[in-house]
Amino acid sequence: MKSVVLIYSGGLDSTVLLYDCLAQGIKVRTLSINYGQKHSKELLVAHETTTQLGIEHRCVDLSCLGKILNSSLTITHEEIPEGHYEAENMKATVVPNRNMILLSIAAGWAISTRSDAVAYGAHGGDHAIYPDCRESFADALDKAIQLADWHPVTLWRPYVHLNKTDLVKKGMELGVPFAKTWSCYKGGHIHCGKCGTCRERKEAFSLAGVYDPTTYAG
Amino acid sequence: MKSVVLIYSGGLDSTVLLYDCLAQGIKVRTLSINYGQKHSKELLVAHETTTQLGIEHRCVDLSCLGKILNSSLTITHEEIPEGHYEAENMKATVVPNRNMILLSIAAGWAISTRSDAVAYGAHGGDHAIYPDCRESFADALDKAIQLADWHPVTLWRPYVHLNKTDLVKKGMELGVPFAKTWSCYKGGHIHCGKCGTCRERKEAFSLAGVYDPTTYAG
Repeated sequence: MKSVVLIYSGGLDSTVLLYDCLAQGIKVRTLSINYGQKHSKELLVAHETTTQLGIEHRCVDLSCLGKILNSSLTITHEEIPEGHYEAENMKATVVPNRNMILLSIAAGWAISTRSDAVAYGAHGGDHAIYPDCRESFADALDKAIQLADWHPVTLWRPYVHLNKTDLVKKGMELGVPFAKTWSCYKGGHIHCGKCGTCRERKEAFSLAGVYDPTTYAG
Repeated sequence: MKSVVLIYSGGLDSTVLLYDCLAQGIKVRTLSINYGQKHSKELLVAHETTTQLGIEHRCVDLSCLGKILNSSLTITHEEIPEGHYEAENMKATVVPNRNMILLSIAAGWAISTRSDAVAYGAHGGDHAIYPDCRESFADALDKAIQLADWHPVTLWRPYVHLNKTDLVKKGMELGVPFAKTWSCYKGGHIHCGKCGTCRERKEAFSLAGVYDPTTYAG
């Protein structure tokens, strides 16, 4: 694989994948999407990291989709649930079909730039709550993307069998600046430490035995 | 099937499918996308038709995607090619991965509204130039959409084995006001009569033996 379009949120998972690509000498274009998420801080973080690395970064504004896609991540008056990332109430954070929308736009850019693949950092820990992070979904979408155009693009999802603890270990080996990645769903200035994704982040550092440089509230 | 989100361009094919749904008593929500196409007249036509029928219609503005998706349909200085719809030079009109992007957004809205399916008017005549109108693509994407969320949505593509001539005949039976549908890629006030989609339209009426009420230039 020589070139990819990476779905880049500025979070831990996609930043590990970014460093992984660079370590393998793969040319990377990064794509972030503003879909009206409350935690738009991730978009600033994505911009800063890619600027520092000298990597092409595009941010597409799909915030108008917030009008048709119901989710506590996008609806202003709805609270982000607190609790474990895999808990039932976290389903409120699902943005309907978000990943297929992101991946299809990334595939369109990959076709336009004659890239080999779309790189997607979904991992095993996402599976409980988010059906569109699962392997079966990724397999079906990979097939559709390959059939979508005369120029074949594949969906590369190297972490689909790993969990977040594995990614922290991998990031450590690759020298990922974890402190510069953003996970929290709540949109504050520092990580809240209480939402599902903050808890998952903390737990992964702890289980990996890696120092967590994140500043959490409280 | 009780309710669908219909990808609605205001063109002949999706208007036939709209009338087909209504004749079957299916509740329809219609979705149009502004992806920076020169022929934005189709969006006005879609708005007028759905308003007259009292059908919910949303138009999502993705014109910012024109920056990353190369196509003569969206690049201002590039000419729309003239000739037969199935000719090789028509490939310049392909918007990379457009259909997957539209379908994934429609699926997101279908999930949000607990609709049963996304309705998609792709037909057999689209296959030569547009890989993302083919049955194999629709089959793969149907599978991905069904796996994308806890609420299952299917991709309904009832015309994938028909051709445009069949659709003109079907539209005639359903009482579709053909004169109010828009096909031309060029973005003028009347159909140019020369671009691929105008030629395909003319040919379909002629082969179906149905009076063509379209005003063509020249």
